[in-house]
This record gives sequence, structure tokens and C-alpha cells, in this order.
Amino acid sequence: MSEHREFEQVTAKAHANIALIKYWGKRDEQLFLPMNSSLSITLDKFYTETSVHFCEDLKADVFIFNKCIANVAETNKVSRYLDHIRKMAGVERYAMVQSINYVPTAAGFASSASGYAALSSAAARAIGLDVDEKKLSQLARIGSGSASRSIFGGFVEWTKGNLDDGSDCYARQIEEESYWDLCILAIQLSDKKKSISSRAGMKHTVETSPFYNIWVKEAEKDLGLLKDALQQKDFERFGHVTESNALKMHATTLGANPPYWYWEAGTISVMNQVRQLRDSGVLAFFTMDAGPNVFVICQQKDKEVVENTLLTLDEIEQIYVCQPGPGVTYLSK
Amino acid sequence: MSEHREFEQVTAKAHANIALIKYWGKRDEQLFLPMNSSLSITLDKFYTETSVHFCEDLKADVFIFNKCIANVAETNKVSRYLDHIRKMAGVERYAMVQSINYVPTAAGFASSASGYAALSSAAARAIGLDVDEKKLSQLARIGSGSASRSIFGGFVEWTKGNLDDGSDCYARQIEEESYWDLCILAIQLSDKKKSISSRAGMKHTVETSPFYNIWVKEAEKDLGLLKDALQQKDFERFGHVTESNALKMHATTLGANPPYWYWEAGTISVMNQVRQLRDSGVLAFFTMDAGPNVFVICQQKDKEVVENTLLTLDEIEQIYVCQPGPGVTYLSK
Repeated sequence: MSEHREFEQVTAKAHANIALIKYWGKRDEQLFLPMNSSLSITLDKFYTETSVHFCEDLKADVFIFNKCIANVAETNKVSRYLDHIRKMAGVERYAMVQSINYVPTAAGFASSASGYAALSSAAARAIGLDVDEKKLSQLARIGSGSASRSIFGGFVEWTKGNLDDGSDCYARQIEEESYWDLCILAIQLSDKKKSISSRAGMKHTVETSPFYNIWVKEAEKDLGLLKDALQQKDFERFGHVTESNALKMHATTLGANPPYWYWEAGTISVMNQVRQLRDSGVLAFFTMDAGPNVFVICQQKDKEVVENTLLTLDEIEQIYVCQPGPGVTYLSK
Repeated sequence: MSEHREFEQVTAKAHANIALIKYWGKRDEQLFLPMNSSLSITLDKFYTETSVHFCEDLKADVFIFNKCIANVAETNKVSRYLDHIRKMAGVERYAMVQSINYVPTAAGFASSASGYAALSSAAARAIGLDVDEKKLSQLARIGSGSASRSIFGGFVEWTKGNLDDGSDCYARQIEEESYWDLCILAIQLSDKKKSISSRAGMKHTVETSPFYNIWVKEAEKDLGLLKDALQQKDFERFGHVTESNALKMHATTLGANPPYWYWEAGTISVMNQVRQLRDSGVLAFFTMDAGPNVFVICQQKDKEVVENTLLTLDEIEQIYVCQPGPGVTYLSK
């Protein structure tokens, strides 16, 4: 078919993101269609670089992760994802995939968003698919829901859509990364036990939590409030909506059957410290994904006082100071 | 009127209780009528002893608390409560009230339940009211909702009722204190900041949390499940329902606007330790009231392993080992 075409190696760099309005629950497990729309900030410090080359002489996909041959399970996962891309392009050729992760995953920060955003971007371009960013966000979504948002920089909205085929479900940038003088402190806790994955957690919650339907309604409301606050550059309201949305997401897990929770002692210590900072007049707000680590959001001018105050807590191992980051870029060889 | 009758001093002793199905939200603020029925265990270790004497020669109520004259605000609160009793009895005479609290309130354990159960019992008998225990639970309720349960020992159900005047809202014992070989570890955390009171918290939650209506339905369901488990002496199911109900109550606070939470780092540490104990085969379960302290429930045979495991946590200051306790008793002089 296209066996004699020449394919070039393409390298893409994509950044992680932190959701302010959380993606929590799927309406379609296969297509990664979410129950509610979400909104995130792309983070400049955490990213993945992935090179894809569809080569004529390979007998199988090869996946090199952080400069080592990946294990069979990981390679199969990437292969299944590439099957999707190959099918779209009508190309039957194996690929060499090399990926380097600059996300501290051992510290409990998720890398699937930047990972699948980089993989989808590199693979699509390497195989010659002519796709715009909207379509790219849909391609990335098939690997990991939140990856759809990592295609873009700055403030990104992922619209849930209503159609069964997912064609109206995609992400887009709503504000650029330079829009606001924000600072995001990604806080790594010293006690980082492995808990239930976000994928398993959201499924269990959708199926068993009596609070879940309320969550879906609240998330849509919060999304509107957050976009309003963004438009009006009202940082205080922006922060309160962010914090409230995260707490409601975590509340749903407490209602699941059996109940579960992602928090460790350090999670609460940071939450309480942030509340105390606000009581003393410093505008700082927290959010947590499906894990114990906390992200604290403040304005650049308050960065030092927030960071120094948090560093007094025993349970904190490290703080990564991030700013809003860019969308996917392609690197020349 | 009754000015020439003789009144004797009466001393009543009432114990604190811990709710397994939480009382969370009022449908009537004046009459302390709850939105949902609740179920508790009375605790043998924590109690209040209160003496009441309606004396002819007093010019005002006198309230001696822990052997000191109480301040004006506390005395006024007791006076307003006694007004209610005086009105019922048709007696106009001031009282000398002496109360000693054996509840470690400075450690964050609530004393209003045992306090108002002892005060109502002593006052009703001292003024010559002929009331049975059901009526007494309604009298205690007017002082503090959970006090209605402290009239009884063992396992106690407080039925919410439906009538506006509260006449069908009362507590009763459903199982005796000797019924089950239980052990309740009341865990005092070292970090005990003052947080929002349960009274203010439940009001704020009823008014603003989108999860609140779900809570009311869940509490009624959990009550049925817990009574079933009690009847079948199924400790494991009993524990799971208890834990799940507490978590759902706390989930409602995360949805309030603005959100709030009662937990400290130590709260989560104990929760996680209890979960780990269960993973290792020891049946222990937790519950928390409107505060950071945790109550851990296990069977007598597991008491030592549970206590010793919990004592390894830094955040724990002291553990009070309780058993199900008795209802109100009257002490002779």
C-alpha cells in the first residue's frame, strides 16, 4: 500500500497539565469520553519528549523509555495506540518510539498526559497524517483523557461533547500561557504510598458514589465560574473555584462503596497551611489530582512567602516551582 | 404558687456518646429537630456529674462548673435551659447547679451530650417533674441534639420524627451495653486547632452543600444497614457501615460554599493506619465527629494490637480506651 513511502523521524515535546476543573468520570471507556468538561493549566517544568520513526525494516514496534527498552506490557500499550494511528493513515509499518520523561513520576506526578500528547503528536506527523490541533487533541485523548489538554499551552478547556462517536469532544486553548502572572507549586510529599489509580478510582466512583451525579452538575457550574473569573482577571475568585472543585471531586470518593481517599497526612498539612496563608492575607489556593500530592497556586509576587511557609512542613520532600507552559512543539533533529 | 414546697438536691451522672450514624443537620433550629435519625454508642470513660437544687433563698441561678463559678455567658445558657424546665413544672425558683466534667474537652472531645443529659435529668427530678426516659431524651435534646442519646446506655437510636412540635422525635436504647464485646479507642491528636463548631458547621452545610440532600438519604439507608448488622452480630459489616457513614458526613463539608473540613494531618494518619490494620487482617474501623479526633472501634480481642499500632504514630498524644457505657444514673448524696 504505502510500503515504499519514506517516513521521517519526528520528535515532539509536550507538557504536563494540572486540572483546575477536574476530569472525573468517563461516559465512554473505549473512546475516553468524559462525563464533564474540564479546564487546566499546562505546566512549563514537567514534560515528555518523544520521537517516532515508522521504519521499513522493523519486525515489531520498539519502545525505548528513558533510554531503556520498555517491558512487554508497556510496549504493547504503545503498540495498541500506534495501531489506531496506522489505521487512520492506512499505513502498515512498525515504529521505533523513543521517549524521555521529564516528569518526576516516582514522586507521584502523573506523566500520562504529557506522554500521550507527545506520542500522538510525533506519531501523527511521522506517519504523515494531516491533522489540526483540535483533531490532535482527540487523538491524544484516546491514549489518556487528560492528554487532550496537553496539546495546548496556557489555560485549556476540554469540552465533553454529547455525540457518541466523540467528534464534538476536544480541547482548545482559552487563554495563553503569558496571560496571567501565575505560579504553580507542585508539592512532592515524602510519604507517597501507591494508591488506587485515577482510572480505576473514577470508574469505581461513577459506579458506586451517591454523590457522583451532583459532581457532574457542579463541575459544569464551576467551569462557567472559572471562565468568568479568568475573563475578569479575578485571581481570588479563580482560586476559590479551583479549590472548591478539587474538594468536591475528592468528596465523591468518600461516598464510594467501599469508600476510599487519595490523601495522606501531608495533603491535609498543606491544605491547612494554605488556609492559614489566606487568613494572613496571602492569596494562595490548592488543588489535588487523584493522588496525595498538592499543587498550590499563587501570583508571582507571593511565590517566595508561599514557598518558604510550605517548606516548614515536615511532610514535604520537594517543591517544583512551575509557571504556565506552552503547547506541543516539534524539535528538529 | 409552689413557693412553699421543699426541693431536694439531685445529682445525675450521664455519659458521652459517639455517633456511628451521624446527626448532621437540623430541620428545626429552636427545637433541635434533626434532618436524619442517628445511632450511637454511649462511652463508659467520659461522663458529666451534675447536681441541681432549686433553693428558696437564691436571687439568681448559680452555676459552678468544675468547682469554679462559671462566667456570665455559660450561666445564662444554663439559666435559659432551666427556664424551660421551670415552665414545664410551673415552678419559679432559682437553682444552684454544680457540674463536674470527666470529658477531656481540652483534648477536643465534646461534652455537650453528657452535659445536657446530666443537667436535664438532675433538673427534672429536682423540680419534681414526672418524666419517663423517652420524655427525658426530648428534654435533653433541647439543650444539645446529641444529648438525647446520652440518656441511654449501650446502642442508642435517636429517631428524627416528622411532627413540627418534635413530639415524635426521641431516643431509645436498641441494644444494651453488654451486648457486644466492643472496644472504642478515643484518639486524642497532638495538633488540636479549634475549628468550626458542629452547630455552625452543620448549619452552613445544610444551607450550601449540594451533597447535603444525598447525605440525608444515605444516613437513613445506613441506619437500616447498621441495625441489621447489629441484629446479626456481624461486626465486619457493622464497622464498614460506620466508617462509610462518617466519610459521607465529612464529604458534605467539602461541598459547602465556602468549603471546610475538620481533619488534621493526624486524622488521615489514623485513617490510613486503620486501613492498613484491616489489610493485615485485623478488624478495626474509624469514625470522626465534627472535629479532627478519631474514634477507632474494634473487638476486645484485638484491642492491644490496635492500640499498640496506633501509638507508633507521631501525631497521637493519647488514647482513651472506652467500652460501651450505661445510661443516666442518679447518685445519692
